[in-house]
Amino acid sequence: MGEATYVLVTGANRGIGLELVKQLLGKSNPHSGSLRPAGTRMESEHPNLVIIALEATDPASVKAAATRVEEHLKSSGLNLLINKAGIARLSTLESETAEGMSLVYATNVTGPLLVSQAFLPLLKKAAQGSNQKGLSCSKAAIVNMSSEAGSIQNVLIWHVGQVIAYRCSKAALNMLTKCQSLGYGGDGILSVAVHPGWVQTDMGISLSPEAPLTVDASVRGILNVLPTLSEKDNGAFMSWEGKVLPW
Amino acid sequence: MGEATYVLVTGANRGIGLELVKQLLGKSNPHSGSLRPAGTRMESEHPNLVIIALEATDPASVKAAATRVEEHLKSSGLNLLINKAGIARLSTLESETAEGMSLVYATNVTGPLLVSQAFLPLLKKAAQGSNQKGLSCSKAAIVNMSSEAGSIQNVLIWHVGQVIAYRCSKAALNMLTKCQSLGYGGDGILSVAVHPGWVQTDMGISLSPEAPLTVDASVRGILNVLPTLSEKDNGAFMSWEGKVLPW
Ligand SMILES: NC(=O)c1ccc[n+]([C@@H]2O[C@H](COP(=O)([O-])OP(=O)(O)OC[C@H]3O[C@@H](n4cnc5c(N)ncnc54)[C@H](OP(=O)(O)O)[C@@H]3O)[C@@H](O)[C@H]2O)c1
Ligand SMILES: NC(=O)c1ccc[n+]([C@@H]2O[C@H](COP(=O)([O-])OP(=O)(O)OC[C@H]3O[C@@H](n4cnc5c(N)ncnc54)[C@H](OP(=O)(O)O)[C@@H]3O)[C@@H](O)[C@H]2O)c1
Repeated sequence: MGEATYVLVTGANRGIGLELVKQLLGKSNPHSGSLRPAGTRMESEHPNLVIIALEATDPASVKAAATRVEEHLKSSGLNLLINKAGIARLSTLESETAEGMSLVYATNVTGPLLVSQAFLPLLKKAAQGSNQKGLSCSKAAIVNMSSEAGSIQNVLIWHVGQVIAYRCSKAALNMLTKCQSLGYGGDGILSVAVHPGWVQTDMGISLSPEAPLTVDASVRGILNVLPTLSEKDNGAFMSWEGKVLPW
Repeated sequence: MGEATYVLVTGANRGIGLELVKQLLGKSNPHSGSLRPAGTRMESEHPNLVIIALEATDPASVKAAATRVEEHLKSSGLNLLINKAGIARLSTLESETAEGMSLVYATNVTGPLLVSQAFLPLLKKAAQGSNQKGLSCSKAAIVNMSSEAGSIQNVLIWHVGQVIAYRCSKAALNMLTKCQSLGYGGDGILSVAVHPGWVQTDMGISLSPEAPLTVDASVRGILNVLPTLSEKDNGAFMSWEGKVLPW
């Protein structure tokens, strides 16, 4: 990103979110990370890092987090919102339940919707305060962490795990991303869905220990791709390698 | 369909479901319709029609309906399950709520999942009892009533209504359909998602009175398309005119 880019990463206490925060701090961007109230504490205490409690499925918690971020940013806007918080539960067509469907959807789709709604005023402020033309991640953007497992065309690694609720949630998140791109593009906000690869995090390994990608490589990929995005990518579905994925 | 095709249509008391039942009875197929416990009574009392209460979001109601259908079918299987029950609620990116997301998803995605799980043994029985090769709607099939509003590529009539929860639910339903095609194809069961057009039903008109298609034309189209489907269409997304739609 450019200088003075304010970033919020949800689900920043472990996995891809934690690594995003670390690598972003390496590039020394001022930004915020978010934790759930019950999440583990981030060890690093970097001057550019603010840690904020956020339970993505709870509208009140999301609003409180937005208020806290607004206080920290003072007159600045938020440039980049990375909706990374997400869950997966092993399931098959046979074993999937109403509870599983509901919980995974609330976290992976309704969460990003609510978080985006709450931070929209700060994203708009960043877009309005920017003198950049067009759309970019350093101006104002929503990045939804999706998955190629949610590509209806590709149905990545079906034979490793059916994970029905998870796949349905990520297809729905891709639709939400497309809707956000149509709704917010005119406000100067870019919206994209990103597939981080199949990564060696708790989630990636829970599917199978064969997860091929290190967290470091995934996040380096993502942070290489984001600065290349512009208005032509608004509403797209991109991999950590910058490849456009089919819905 | 061929002769002696057993069909279950969920949400058969009005709209597209009611018309499906009427036109199927015109072709004099034995089959079942389903109503919610609180739904209006079907007027027609046709010898080939059995009306069964089914609340698609309630696992117990779905299981009870499957038991009743099994009793009616005696030794036969169920050839065609049409998951038509669905809801839409007007909303925008700004106004959509956690409750709206949850309710629409439970009805439009979890409902078809639960109904398909409960009727799977009867669908398998129909497939096993058939001497047809390959896949077809007269052998054994799941037809999920989707919508081009849920095509992430096309985002049909965005400017008429954003209907965020609805669009997200239909993209997820398309993913469920794809998963069912992968999971059940080997059991001789075809799975497809169908877009009925923008139709003059309560739902279609609630979006805008400009809904162009009569219920009669939509259902005639659907009932022309279904018999043409074979294994090459397993997991596809088709319009009432037989066009393949992009995810
Ligand atoms: N790993 C992969 O192979 C892979 C592949 C494709 C896509 N993805 C996507 O990438 C994202 C991150 O995955 P990951 O591998 O980093 O997962 P992870 O290691 O399991 O971490 C999940 C993170 O999300 C947080 N979280 C979960 N539910 C939350 C909620 N309701 N509110 C706030 N935070 C919540 C967790 O917080 P707690 O610690 O408090 O639980 C944790 O920080 C997910 O959206 C996932 O779907 C991952
Ligand atoms: N109309 C369109 O333009 C259009 C376009 C694209 C796709 N579709 C899809 O086509 C399907 C049918 O739409 P329609 O136009 O016929 O809608 P409709 O006239 O509004 O009828 C909806 C039907 O679904 C039933 N239903 C709703 N929730 C249910 C539940 N939880 N359990 C059991 N039944 C339930 C309703 O029963 P009650 O009478 O008891 O409420 C009713 O029979 C829907 O899936 C819709 O998304 C419609």
